[in-house]
Amino acid sequence: MRDRRLVVDELPEPVPGPGEVLVSTLACGICGSDLHALKFADQMVQNAIESGSPYVMDLSRDIVMGHEFCAEVLDYGSGTPKRFASGTPVVSMPLLVRGERANTVGYSNDFPGGYGERMILNDALLLPVPNGLPAEHAALTEPMAVGLHAVVKAQLGKSDAPLVVGCGPVGLAVIAALKLRGIGPIVAADFSPMRRSLAEKLGADHLIDPRAGSGYEELARVAPGRTAVIFECVGVPGMLQQILKGAPVGARVCVVGVCMEDDRIRPMLAIAKELQLQFVLGYLPNEFAESLQAIADGAIDVSPLITGRVGLDGVAGAFEALANPEAHAKILVEPARR
Amino acid sequence: MRDRRLVVDELPEPVPGPGEVLVSTLACGICGSDLHALKFADQMVQNAIESGSPYVMDLSRDIVMGHEFCAEVLDYGSGTPKRFASGTPVVSMPLLVRGERANTVGYSNDFPGGYGERMILNDALLLPVPNGLPAEHAALTEPMAVGLHAVVKAQLGKSDAPLVVGCGPVGLAVIAALKLRGIGPIVAADFSPMRRSLAEKLGADHLIDPRAGSGYEELARVAPGRTAVIFECVGVPGMLQQILKGAPVGARVCVVGVCMEDDRIRPMLAIAKELQLQFVLGYLPNEFAESLQAIADGAIDVSPLITGRVGLDGVAGAFEALANPEAHAKILVEPARR
Repeated sequence: MRDRRLVVDELPEPVPGPGEVLVSTLACGICGSDLHALKFADQMVQNAIESGSPYVMDLSRDIVMGHEFCAEVLDYGSGTPKRFASGTPVVSMPLLVRGERANTVGYSNDFPGGYGERMILNDALLLPVPNGLPAEHAALTEPMAVGLHAVVKAQLGKSDAPLVVGCGPVGLAVIAALKLRGIGPIVAADFSPMRRSLAEKLGADHLIDPRAGSGYEELARVAPGRTAVIFECVGVPGMLQQILKGAPVGARVCVVGVCMEDDRIRPMLAIAKELQLQFVLGYLPNEFAESLQAIADGAIDVSPLITGRVGLDGVAGAFEALANPEAHAKILVEPARR
Repeated sequence: MRDRRLVVDELPEPVPGPGEVLVSTLACGICGSDLHALKFADQMVQNAIESGSPYVMDLSRDIVMGHEFCAEVLDYGSGTPKRFASGTPVVSMPLLVRGERANTVGYSNDFPGGYGERMILNDALLLPVPNGLPAEHAALTEPMAVGLHAVVKAQLGKSDAPLVVGCGPVGLAVIAALKLRGIGPIVAADFSPMRRSLAEKLGADHLIDPRAGSGYEELARVAPGRTAVIFECVGVPGMLQQILKGAPVGARVCVVGVCMEDDRIRPMLAIAKELQLQFVLGYLPNEFAESLQAIADGAIDVSPLITGRVGLDGVAGAFEALANPEAHAKILVEPARR
């Protein structure tokens, strides 16, 4: 991202320091957050400043995005024990700690993300890809971990039942995590037939087209008497208000969708029904590791999610293509692809 | 409330049905919700419709407001066992169940509230006022129950610490309930010196003038390492956004203030810090009963809250006076006062 646009260019090879590893990107998923970051770059910077985040992008400098990656080990920084042989496929949380500072890999001015050919990662954060899992599946560790974290934070008990609103990559990850945890029945809603079909493949039990029916009514029908736990996986202005209107009394809303813009709500709707909104973000290291293992074990089948693959020249076009929910779920960037 | 204005007029005496009791109002507190209801009557109707509430006011007909009352028994409906002698002081949740319909007492077109001389209540909901407690103190059972309910819903554990934002009647009730439950230290913030002084009397340990300091910083200082549980007790547009900005990572926000208008938030602030918003309203019967008992036992001293008393002719003026936080906390309507 250069001057708020995607460009392909040669950059200096990053140099791993002590405790760091140079890797070659094998595959990197394009995340909705990256689409947001490109479209709302200034808003994202403003949000980071206002929330006191240590991760503030400098938009006057280049940023190599990409934080859903699988890579292979190339070389180690000085004094770093060579835990994995060259060529070992690995994943890592998209975080690079150097000195006292943690940097996001994928939103940093200093450390390139997975839409580039080379990254540096912390040796200590590397997880080897098990079971001969293809790199393109391992690259989905990160987005699947987002869903797992949301499900963990939502703390569903036996008297709760989930409704997933929006079946883009985030909603699909939530569905996969609910299934992994044995939580159900899972009701999922999306306008797109393709996304509903993916939701079913990933484990949703009841699919709703919001034009034709109500997810809230369906949930009441298939899980009567249970507390609705609504996963908001759309992340556009107006969704929260719509959920406040539709949610049944006492519902909990787990906000996983990332809405970058200001949003308008009518608090009285939430007050009258005593709703709870739990905003969530990211994942913990154990959730990230569990996500990789679940994919490698076949407990989560991510293959239906992968709807496209592009080389570096195709990234900008892929960002455009992802705007159409009928065409794509997850597009992988493979820098070696020509 | 007639045609969105307060007027004093003669109405027919309400007639108690089976299981109902005719009472004479002794004292009735003026609630911020009533100020809201007068100012935002149309909005309140709209909210009720949109949230599917069974309580929808007809603004073309009279409404006798007042739902924080203590009254004395006058007479019983036919076939109703006379549990309490005439003249017995009682309180009740402001709810009248007749047939299959529950009506709010104080926002109903059919059943007058405590700003009138007579009400009818359900015999089954009456709680006799114990310990010779003055009626003006017993009238505060209802607002104190609101605070108790909020504190119960917020589920504070040993690793949590409360910050009360806004020390009007709602915030003061939350402080009293925190104190009652032995939860502390209690940090409370309000611009008004008079309200901060009341907050201290009701049990707040650390008082903050937001012009001079930060409640969030004070909480971190006096309860380091504990999770902030922020009680939003202001209920005006912009407060939620301000709290999303100021709240520390992982905080829980218990929204007790009733904001009737649309409000604007930036969800990203809440997402980045994984905040939780729990909206609350009202109380359960056991909380209402506990509130009365705590006041009667002296565990909650409501006397500092009472800053004014008016007769029926003074209600409209009292609504005006309550806009000034330096002048008043709770004004009681005493219909017998001339």
